[in-house]
Amino acid sequence: MTDPISTVLEPEQQRIAGDALCATVVDLIDLSLIGKQAHWNVIGPRFRTVHEALDELVDTARGFTDAAAERATAIGVSPDGRARTVAADSGADPFPEGWQQDGDVIRSIVSTLAAVVRRLRERIDASEKADPVTQDLLIDIAARLEQLHWMWQAQAA
Amino acid sequence: MTDPISTVLEPEQQRIAGDALCATVVDLIDLSLIGKQAHWNVIGPRFRTVHEALDELVDTARGFTDAAAERATAIGVSPDGRARTVAADSGADPFPEGWQQDGDVIRSIVSTLAAVVRRLRERIDASEKADPVTQDLLIDIAARLEQLHWMWQAQAA
Amino acid sequence: MTDPISTVLEPEQQRIAGDALCATVVDLIDLSLIGKQAHWNVIGPRFRTVHEALDELVDTARGFTDAAAERATAIGVSPDGRARTVAADSGADPFPEGWQQDGDVIRSIVSTLAAVVRRLRERIDASEKADPVTQDLLIDIAARLEQLHWMWQAQAA
Amino acid sequence: MTDPISTVLEPEQQRIAGDALCATVVDLIDLSLIGKQAHWNVIGPRFRTVHEALDELVDTARGFTDAAAERATAIGVSPDGRARTVAADSGADPFPEGWQQDGDVIRSIVSTLAAVVRRLRERIDASEKADPVTQDLLIDIAARLEQLHWMWQAQAA
Amino acid sequence: MTDPISTVLEPEQQRIAGDALCATVVDLIDLSLIGKQAHWNVIGPRFRTVHEALDELVDTARGFTDAAAERATAIGVSPDGRARTVAADSGADPFPEGWQQDGDVIRSIVSTLAAVVRRLRERIDASEKADPVTQDLLIDIAARLEQLHWMWQAQAA
Amino acid sequence: MTDPISTVLEPEQQRIAGDALCATVVDLIDLSLIGKQAHWNVIGPRFRTVHEALDELVDTARGFTDAAAERATAIGVSPDGRARTVAADSGADPFPEGWQQDGDVIRSIVSTLAAVVRRLRERIDASEKADPVTQDLLIDIAARLEQLHWMWQAQAA
Amino acid sequence: MTDPISTVLEPEQQRIAGDALCATVVDLIDLSLIGKQAHWNVIGPRFRTVHEALDELVDTARGFTDAAAERATAIGVSPDGRARTVAADSGADPFPEGWQQDGDVIRSIVSTLAAVVRRLRERIDASEKADPVTQDLLIDIAARLEQLHWMWQAQAA
Amino acid sequence: MTDPISTVLEPEQQRIAGDALCATVVDLIDLSLIGKQAHWNVIGPRFRTVHEALDELVDTARGFTDAAAERATAIGVSPDGRARTVAADSGADPFPEGWQQDGDVIRSIVSTLAAVVRRLRERIDASEKADPVTQDLLIDIAARLEQLHWMWQAQAA
Amino acid sequence: MTDPISTVLEPEQQRIAGDALCATVVDLIDLSLIGKQAHWNVIGPRFRTVHEALDELVDTARGFTDAAAERATAIGVSPDGRARTVAADSGADPFPEGWQQDGDVIRSIVSTLAAVVRRLRERIDASEKADPVTQDLLIDIAARLEQLHWMWQAQAA
Amino acid sequence: MTDPISTVLEPEQQRIAGDALCATVVDLIDLSLIGKQAHWNVIGPRFRTVHEALDELVDTARGFTDAAAERATAIGVSPDGRARTVAADSGADPFPEGWQQDGDVIRSIVSTLAAVVRRLRERIDASEKADPVTQDLLIDIAARLEQLHWMWQAQAA
Amino acid sequence: MTDPISTVLEPEQQRIAGDALCATVVDLIDLSLIGKQAHWNVIGPRFRTVHEALDELVDTARGFTDAAAERATAIGVSPDGRARTVAADSGADPFPEGWQQDGDVIRSIVSTLAAVVRRLRERIDASEKADPVTQDLLIDIAARLEQLHWMWQAQAA
Amino acid sequence: MTDPISTVLEPEQQRIAGDALCATVVDLIDLSLIGKQAHWNVIGPRFRTVHEALDELVDTARGFTDAAAERATAIGVSPDGRARTVAADSGADPFPEGWQQDGDVIRSIVSTLAAVVRRLRERIDASEKADPVTQDLLIDIAARLEQLHWMWQAQAA
Repeated sequence: MTDPISTVLEPEQQRIAGDALCATVVDLIDLSLIGKQAHWNVIGPRFRTVHEALDELVDTARGFTDAAAERATAIGVSPDGRARTVAADSGADPFPEGWQQDGDVIRSIVSTLAAVVRRLRERIDASEKADPVTQDLLIDIAARLEQLHWMWQAQAA
Repeated sequence: MTDPISTVLEPEQQRIAGDALCATVVDLIDLSLIGKQAHWNVIGPRFRTVHEALDELVDTARGFTDAAAERATAIGVSPDGRARTVAADSGADPFPEGWQQDGDVIRSIVSTLAAVVRRLRERIDASEKADPVTQDLLIDIAARLEQLHWMWQAQAA
Repeated sequence: MTDPISTVLEPEQQRIAGDALCATVVDLIDLSLIGKQAHWNVIGPRFRTVHEALDELVDTARGFTDAAAERATAIGVSPDGRARTVAADSGADPFPEGWQQDGDVIRSIVSTLAAVVRRLRERIDASEKADPVTQDLLIDIAARLEQLHWMWQAQAA
Repeated sequence: MTDPISTVLEPEQQRIAGDALCATVVDLIDLSLIGKQAHWNVIGPRFRTVHEALDELVDTARGFTDAAAERATAIGVSPDGRARTVAADSGADPFPEGWQQDGDVIRSIVSTLAAVVRRLRERIDASEKADPVTQDLLIDIAARLEQLHWMWQAQAA
Repeated sequence: MTDPISTVLEPEQQRIAGDALCATVVDLIDLSLIGKQAHWNVIGPRFRTVHEALDELVDTARGFTDAAAERATAIGVSPDGRARTVAADSGADPFPEGWQQDGDVIRSIVSTLAAVVRRLRERIDASEKADPVTQDLLIDIAARLEQLHWMWQAQAA
Repeated sequence: MTDPISTVLEPEQQRIAGDALCATVVDLIDLSLIGKQAHWNVIGPRFRTVHEALDELVDTARGFTDAAAERATAIGVSPDGRARTVAADSGADPFPEGWQQDGDVIRSIVSTLAAVVRRLRERIDASEKADPVTQDLLIDIAARLEQLHWMWQAQAA
Repeated sequence: MTDPISTVLEPEQQRIAGDALCATVVDLIDLSLIGKQAHWNVIGPRFRTVHEALDELVDTARGFTDAAAERATAIGVSPDGRARTVAADSGADPFPEGWQQDGDVIRSIVSTLAAVVRRLRERIDASEKADPVTQDLLIDIAARLEQLHWMWQAQAA
Repeated sequence: MTDPISTVLEPEQQRIAGDALCATVVDLIDLSLIGKQAHWNVIGPRFRTVHEALDELVDTARGFTDAAAERATAIGVSPDGRARTVAADSGADPFPEGWQQDGDVIRSIVSTLAAVVRRLRERIDASEKADPVTQDLLIDIAARLEQLHWMWQAQAA
Repeated sequence: MTDPISTVLEPEQQRIAGDALCATVVDLIDLSLIGKQAHWNVIGPRFRTVHEALDELVDTARGFTDAAAERATAIGVSPDGRARTVAADSGADPFPEGWQQDGDVIRSIVSTLAAVVRRLRERIDASEKADPVTQDLLIDIAARLEQLHWMWQAQAA
Repeated sequence: MTDPISTVLEPEQQRIAGDALCATVVDLIDLSLIGKQAHWNVIGPRFRTVHEALDELVDTARGFTDAAAERATAIGVSPDGRARTVAADSGADPFPEGWQQDGDVIRSIVSTLAAVVRRLRERIDASEKADPVTQDLLIDIAARLEQLHWMWQAQAA
Repeated sequence: MTDPISTVLEPEQQRIAGDALCATVVDLIDLSLIGKQAHWNVIGPRFRTVHEALDELVDTARGFTDAAAERATAIGVSPDGRARTVAADSGADPFPEGWQQDGDVIRSIVSTLAAVVRRLRERIDASEKADPVTQDLLIDIAARLEQLHWMWQAQAA
Repeated sequence: MTDPISTVLEPEQQRIAGDALCATVVDLIDLSLIGKQAHWNVIGPRFRTVHEALDELVDTARGFTDAAAERATAIGVSPDGRARTVAADSGADPFPEGWQQDGDVIRSIVSTLAAVVRRLRERIDASEKADPVTQDLLIDIAARLEQLHWMWQAQAA
């Protein structure tokens, strides 16, 4: 079965915007899984604030995952957010197994957020010509992730 | 670092209950990723009801994932819900890529729910002696997943 | 048409749990009808508190009716809550017609609750081996009905 | 004990309005029991929408049952909504036992709503002279049931 | 200044409907003042239920006062709800000064509600030809006050 | 395709009630469009209060449009609320283009409300025999529009 | 029947505080009746803002009426808020009958608020020694009425 | 009266952005009227989901109509959303009269959404230089309408 | 460790206000424990109203306990609300063990409230010079407890 | 007065379950008093998170106190939660007086939770045969307290 | 223009109370600006709790600013809260520019709160004779700021 | 201490975007202070609507101040919103001291909004190349302020 969902975009525009969105879906799902992993395994004096801040991160990642995936469908591109795909293609840093001290969790999240934001910035540039609607969504995601990046850095300062 | 979280359970009880919980965490995360994948890719005359029912399934899976993972921490066992672990260890059926007709989605969800419930039932038996608190949580999860199993079957009847 | 809804339970387990649930559905529907009948027909100095307490009883009975009926469907058993079935099979005490003094209403509700609870207790024992998920639901129902039983007794003391 | 609740209506007015209300109470309780019975037993591709629409029907029936019964009490007439009375006197169509295909459920509900509405229309005429307050309530009930009648027909078209 | 608010009613229709509404405004304001007076001064074993039921009565009376007064303005008739007018023209029974036993309060409220309802019934008849919109509002008020009349009688039974 | 929705009304009753409802739908849609047009274009010292009052008018018109249209469907009559139909058949006064001073807006709304109410009054009389349920809805609409008519007149006084 | 409610205050303290509270109850009831009278009868360009501001005044007056009356009961003094008492003893300015221009309403409310506040200030002084709890309530009432006094003056400036 | 509302835009920028906004207002009003027309007239097995999805469409269209019209006023351009203007200038497909099968409704909405989105895309390009604020709003509207376009297509697949 | 929390009060002022607050904390905790004890053990015809009124008392006592304790901390005084301290220092009347008839509960609560209020009144006088902020809080507590004292007396009258 | 509340349990079952519940009530009240004591007296860099986490602990303890006490009443056993009983019989660790550093508070709460949980576990075993409904409640309490135990340990790690 | 708002206070009373309120307005605005400045610039391990606690401080300061300014207007005194006035007259400590470590922020806020509270205490004494209503407001502000002073000190202990 | 917060922007991009944001923070704080100053000091017939509209303006300004300041922090730039900075650098028009007639307030706000919007437009152009995320925020702020600019102009027309 091919192309059950049509779009007003040109094929090349569709390809560029679709690639940007699908890669973002994968990064954001991994971010939400890492956020939960850290939420459960963090220990240390700052346990409570870090534990709660991680759920705020997870909520953000989940909300934008849905937005990016449904923007892909809106331009006729099928998104792929299955575990295997995420495990293979995510641009986020791997997160270690087992209990983690709060300071280590903070450093790890700061680093992962920086990696995800850097990839987003490239996609914002790439999608400008292809589809301003997609670019606008990627800008929204970057705005929020950069805000979280500041907050997690501020705790590490 | 070993055992930062202590428990009143005996080591053997802790091992049995911990194994049951960690495996449940993995199954439920995969269930939530499959639910979202289907939520985005379903097409067909029943699109809207299936699209919405899948989000109900995802919310259920996410809520119980957290409950199971935090029960594991409560008995001093570190849960592992990272993408790689889920991709490797999940007991759910694989979900195909690309757009999917609504009838196929329904059949796939019915089958995956049956697989997850069957594994849960075994863990309910195994955890009875080890930890009635853990067993009680697994019973709650089974009760809700079996209810969803009925609802998804009812649509296929 | 037979068995459109499958279950992981063995046939004998399904039969025992299904019987317990279906009989509970009938008792609870009758309890809700009796509660409303009393709600409308009570008179006397304690009219307001009894009138309101009866609606609390009706809400409880209705909520658990749904829970028990949907647990039956979850294990592939079709529940029967039609007027004729309730009139024929209910284990609740009959409630007299016409206006009723508040003291008489209280005595009647105490007696009906005792009858329903006693039958529930037997089903809790019966369902332990057959299906712990069903047993767990019946325990929840008993817990709440025994609480109401105390409250209605307390008014009669 | 006779007549603990007095009314400003003449005895004949009270009798006519009381009869209309008591018969309505019985029809509406049966409608709510049938609605729940169908809610649990419906199967088929339209399971979810029909399952939910039936709860909307049940809520409507329950709300108006209370309104009609408390209008009866307001004019000094004791309503009777016990299981036995409903089983004996209801004007609704009987609903078959066991699992039911969604199309059969829709046809059955359309037919039952038509029967209940037709009886209501007669009572609206009968109560005009006897008691405009009662008539006004019956008109409200008819308005909502006729709206539901359209919606259930529309699904069958 | 005369007639700043025009209406589509004929002068005679306006006069009849306006008289019915203005008299209702006065009765309902007095009912709300009596309700509050009783709310503060009631004593006795049923203090709490009577105290609270009186606020329910006051809320009802206040809401309908506004509805009746704004219906009068809608047909170009200026309503008069000043203390002096209420003291002079109310059809409600006078309420005694000082602390009152709960049983006395109940009897007094039952009697006042009966008086107000009887006057409302006459205005419903009178306004039928003059203005069905006004009649409809008076029917709504009567429906609710007759319900309260039953509830207060039920406590006295 | 003819008559997919049946009704308990006689054909003549259906025709009279249907005509009254369909014409009301058209008037109310135009009222909502005029309300929005004025909402955007009003200027002058009373801008804010008029701007907000117009949204209250629009909400009212939209709510009753839906009620009238769905009452038409409930008696088997298809309503027509398309732009062309509204432009051709509306009984409301035309509203001028461009920015409008607040005083002019008030006078225009008062005049349009009077026209719509006058037509409603005729339909209330016409539908009394045909269908009391329809009449009851038209009375509700008139009650609210006459209240708004007073409020808009009061500002002009 | 005498003194069913006892107090820890001395008889003289009780008399002074009780007089202050009972007179405040009467003033505030009259203020709420005047507020409603003006709410219905105001006309003119500022109709909407004045109409709404009057309801804010009425809510304030009603809330403090209850607070003052229940403070009287708390010190064993029976409050009197019946229509006849209010008509005879209120310290508020009389409000004219019939439709009133908005400017006239504003001037009238400013004047009435000033009169009520002036009387409150005297009672605040009088109750300081007698009962600081009563004084605290009167200060709260004065604070809010003086705020309203400013707002109504500001409209007249 | 000319130009009561000034703007910081150059006249040419104002003209381009104003034209884009005013045409969008007309398309969106028509979309909301078509959505309601379909909401009332749809019949068929998917009645409920389509009936509800149409209200979601109407809410979206109404919300963006207001946003676009108020953006026009913000740059000093008077919007025109009267029935006659909509009937003459809308870019949406005409919708047939009378009852409509659900499949036909879905095809019709898909086609109308495509037409409206295509026109929006042109205005997004046109407004980039003229006014980035206006462009941003048009991008938001397109993002949501393209999402709805996917959802309606998905049902037709 | 001494004095980690500083205050602007003089040492003597701090001592007087601190003593008043700490003693109030102890009385109010005991009041809340007595309220709960009675809530569980009351029986008799007025069970429901007394059972609920006791929770209102408990909520009040708990809220003011926190307010008084945090006022103590705000002036640098450590509050002591441990079970042993409450058992030793409370000024409330002891409450008997076991089931209690409703009339006995009412008399007991009236007596305990009177004792607590009397002690509060002394502290209000004592704290006037020492700290008007503390006095203001004690006045608030007395106002509410005296209101409850009236309500519980009213039930006993 | 003996046994005003009857139960369906055998006397021996009642004794075992009643003892388990009454001891739990005492432990939980002490836990809530200790939680509040710590809430007020904690100081140190982690003041805010510990201060808030203690209120979460207090809410939990209060909620389960009520549940356990009302389960005791439901089986005809009078609970005793008076200050003196709690001071004498609590199984929680004593909490020191005066200001406490946050680290000390955390260690103290961890230790007290461990003691309370250990006692709960014994009662879960003891009540299994005596009353599954009581056992189910104790399991719920243990599940939540063990979760809190993990969270407080995690902060100390 | 002079004195558009009149007051019942004597000129000297008005002057004293007005000065106290206007100076409080300036202090509180500065407190809210400092709170926001710190909210944005804080860094360090306690970032999150301090960041959030600062917003609680800002909300408090803003709420009381409004209360104090509107109390000034209520006694006919025009408040001045413009940037220049705040920069010139504030009694709060200056806050340094640039990023600030969390410990430094805490010390700075403790010191500023102490300064503001000390000035408030003087105004409470000064306003006692002049205007008890104003004094009551200043006491409320001091109560809350002293509570915050404790909480910020507790974090520094 | 330098640069505790890193960013993915180039230094020049960071400088341009940071300057635009910091200047916006200062303008918006001044706008909120002016809005409050006017909120308290406005008098005249339109007092209420202007008084309320000013709070809407203040809420808008406060919300965007936070957004702009936190966007600055997100790109590693420390914002400065202290009273002295605002008094020195704000681009808003000065607001006169003392009571102000409503017409003067409206003219003053229109002029200040125009000044702020003009500066924002320049920063939108400047930040396009430097940082699209910052530009997007500035566009959002301009959109809302231009909407308010229209509404305040409309009142002056």
